[in-house]
Amino acid sequence: MTETVTENRIKFMEHQQPGVTIWFTGLSGAGKTTISRAIEQALQSKGYKRIEILDGDVVRQNLTKGLGFSKEDRDENIRRVGFVANILTRNQVIVLVSAISPYQEIRQEVRERIGNFVEVYVNAPLTVCEQRDVKGLYKKARAGEIKNFTGIDDPYEPPLNPEVECRTDLESLEESVAKVLAKLQELGYLGFPEVKTY
Amino acid sequence: MTETVTENRIKFMEHQQPGVTIWFTGLSGAGKTTISRAIEQALQSKGYKRIEILDGDVVRQNLTKGLGFSKEDRDENIRRVGFVANILTRNQVIVLVSAISPYQEIRQEVRERIGNFVEVYVNAPLTVCEQRDVKGLYKKARAGEIKNFTGIDDPYEPPLNPEVECRTDLESLEESVAKVLAKLQELGYLGFPEVKTY
Repeated sequence: MTETVTENRIKFMEHQQPGVTIWFTGLSGAGKTTISRAIEQALQSKGYKRIEILDGDVVRQNLTKGLGFSKEDRDENIRRVGFVANILTRNQVIVLVSAISPYQEIRQEVRERIGNFVEVYVNAPLTVCEQRDVKGLYKKARAGEIKNFTGIDDPYEPPLNPEVECRTDLESLEESVAKVLAKLQELGYLGFPEVKTY
Repeated sequence: MTETVTENRIKFMEHQQPGVTIWFTGLSGAGKTTISRAIEQALQSKGYKRIEILDGDVVRQNLTKGLGFSKEDRDENIRRVGFVANILTRNQVIVLVSAISPYQEIRQEVRERIGNFVEVYVNAPLTVCEQRDVKGLYKKARAGEIKNFTGIDDPYEPPLNPEVECRTDLESLEESVAKVLAKLQELGYLGFPEVKTY
């Protein structure tokens, strides 16, 4: 009896949630936060418990206050997000990072450090993002009130080989979410949903 | 049969490792890192898998580069450590923070934010720490080569009500470790060790 319980426990342990970082990169307004929140909800409804969203804005308040938007400061910002994402990933957390992260080289550095890494290119044309202008930032950037704004007067380097590309101007939120979940499943990150305890 | 397996799994889930931050505060050379590493080993040998050491020096390299040792910078450093420890704790990780953290107010702020918080005052008289001088820092501080060094020309505010006090000049490492583990057990953080899978 004890033996069986122990075996079941071990079986369950072996099947436990692996950690992974899902990295959403793209222009401001492309839909990174929207998709990552929808993914979080979808995973929670499947019974996953250890999920954490690291949002670019929240991180800038808590870990990188004082950093600006030069390439050097942006890289340091992403490096710190990557540091935290890495610690969480190795502790079996599903980490959803939502950050413009415009530079290819630092994204690659973070990918290599973390290992369990799924890059999602949240792609919508600049004109569409600017039209949405959810936070009113494009307007300010065009007026020159904000400098170094990605897509306006600062570069964005698209991912070379993202695991998933979501064309948010052409597909629905549900389609984007389904694509990400399918890729996670395919890569073995969703094989073992946790049991609901509520 | 399936029912039984599921029940066992749920039972196991309910008994899963709760997250907690164990915060080691004290002078340089008091023994924070030594005790936290010994605790990590002890927990690993009991089968706990999700354990993370956040060491003051490592954090300064990765999250707080550029911050100095003024009260303001020290507080910001501790706030960032606390931010990461909090995320880990709510994802069921046992976090071992090893940081001088000389100011009472910011330790209290971090305690309140995290909730599951065990403060360990690693206490040895300054003279003992200075005699050990593991990193050679006290010598440099006395020579004026390092400024704002805690205990020499910067204050240390002892914890008011630490959960544990380790007098590392009077007790062995084994005794210190046993005290911390006993307190964790008493507070309900060690009720449910995970099963070894190796």
